Amino acid sequence: MDPPLIPSLISASKCFGGWQKRFCHASTTLNCDMRFSLFLPPEAETGPVPVLYWLSGLTCTDENFVQKAGAQRIAAELGLAILAPDTSPRGPEVPGDPEGAWDFGLGAGFYVDATEQPWARHYRMHDYVTRELPDLAEAVFPLSDRRAIAGHSMGGHGALVAALRHPGRYCSVSAFSPIANPMACPWGEKAFSRYLGPDRRTWAAWDSCALLAKAQEKLPLLIDQGDADDFRKSQLRPEALQKAATAAGHPLTLRLQTGYDHSYFFIASFIEDHLRHHAKALG
Amino acid sequence: MDPPLIPSLISASKCFGGWQKRFCHASTTLNCDMRFSLFLPPEAETGPVPVLYWLSGLTCTDENFVQKAGAQRIAAELGLAILAPDTSPRGPEVPGDPEGAWDFGLGAGFYVDATEQPWARHYRMHDYVTRELPDLAEAVFPLSDRRAIAGHSMGGHGALVAALRHPGRYCSVSAFSPIANPMACPWGEKAFSRYLGPDRRTWAAWDSCALLAKAQEKLPLLIDQGDADDFRKSQLRPEALQKAATAAGHPLTLRLQTGYDHSYFFIASFIEDHLRHHAKALG
Repeated sequence: MDPPLIPSLISASKCFGGWQKRFCHASTTLNCDMRFSLFLPPEAETGPVPVLYWLSGLTCTDENFVQKAGAQRIAAELGLAILAPDTSPRGPEVPGDPEGAWDFGLGAGFYVDATEQPWARHYRMHDYVTRELPDLAEAVFPLSDRRAIAGHSMGGHGALVAALRHPGRYCSVSAFSPIANPMACPWGEKAFSRYLGPDRRTWAAWDSCALLAKAQEKLPLLIDQGDADDFRKSQLRPEALQKAATAAGHPLTLRLQTGYDHSYFFIASFIEDHLRHHAKALG
Repeated sequence: MDPPLIPSLISASKCFGGWQKRFCHASTTLNCDMRFSLFLPPEAETGPVPVLYWLSGLTCTDENFVQKAGAQRIAAELGLAILAPDTSPRGPEVPGDPEGAWDFGLGAGFYVDATEQPWARHYRMHDYVTRELPDLAEAVFPLSDRRAIAGHSMGGHGALVAALRHPGRYCSVSAFSPIANPMACPWGEKAFSRYLGPDRRTWAAWDSCALLAKAQEKLPLLIDQGDADDFRKSQLRPEALQKAATAAGHPLTLRLQTGYDHSYFFIASFIEDHLRHHAKALG
């Protein structure tokens, strides 16, 4: 294996005694240049720290969580790094939605590995966030191999699927308002039919509800869902996940938060609980 | 006096048990429609709460602080509302910088009341943030008349000037990286020469250092300044404010924070100290 190319620094700001940094690198998985954001807590100056991978939702980049969630305060206290990748491949060579929609293509990689053309050359976000990026980041930054994963909406789906597909790779997983059953919602059906093709049998490998039914590892799931979220019933379907978890005997804490919507104001309100949950599992 | 027109609600998201809202209203001071953001803590459901007016910096709108500072968590705990206005008049009828620069005109009202044409018809941000907006907000929202004021950069200048020009109107004042001596820095000289005209004698009424020399009320100033802030020496000049405060015997706590820059990552790191400072003064 060739040594990973050092990512180039775009910006660095001191934040709660640690550093919020942003990098660019050439991704061999996605065949394009990618940006990612990394928060390093003060403890990272003296040795490797555990890391939370955060996957964002539709239309986001690596910057939304970093700017809006208020997570650095708690991550600094807990000695936790946070690595936030972008939500799709990027660049002029990457095809987007033919109609220019925001729910497919650029900003909407859905954290799957596409098998269909013209998507398969670039849209391999699952492999990128679960393998290439951790391999790179853990080689060049002061990060340990103790990993947690979390995300919001499309990124909540991505985090659950990452943990369910890779037993042992993550110490903990959580999600805000995840697309819990993408095989059975309009956003998921649009994305999967294009990235994965029309055969729905191949979709099950990327659906949390389907994966739960045969999960070997019973990693507890922590999920927060706002009950005033406009996407809850049509797109997110937390009840389907609850049903699948019950059927499989899989531990799930699903918290329905009264009055909260789909925004980052919701995430900011409860991110502390999630970071403490992850820190406890990371040890 | 006519009763104030009720602002129209643009959005509302539950946040830390309170509500982050955004409104639009017709400003009679600025002769244009304006947007502002208001955080109401849970206590506002049962009665009026004190309010912090937050003034943002160059290029910002009412949304930057709301999205990036992480202030709602502490404001909710302390029972404090936060009202964030925009940084200039807006709209197609409002003239901007003739060369399209970002340091004058739209997003750069500098919190003065312009006397020169074509600016005087719209650019009256001082009167707007110290009189029209509080009169409106305190009439239609559950806000008491106990006020604090704070801001960042251009907005730090605006907050200091507001407090120094209106003894008794604010219980407390603080600033991050304020433009402390605008008469003597390029940003301030550009803005003041256009909004106020070439006679520098009129500028002193809008310069914190000049105002400090004759302040009747000795309201303590709390200021945080990053020592890695690229604008510190050329534009912000905290040392000039320190000198003016010492000469006037005016209480000033100026904290130079090692390694921090001019960004919202700096503000987020220390906003809790500022909110606790204000809450103490507000009682």
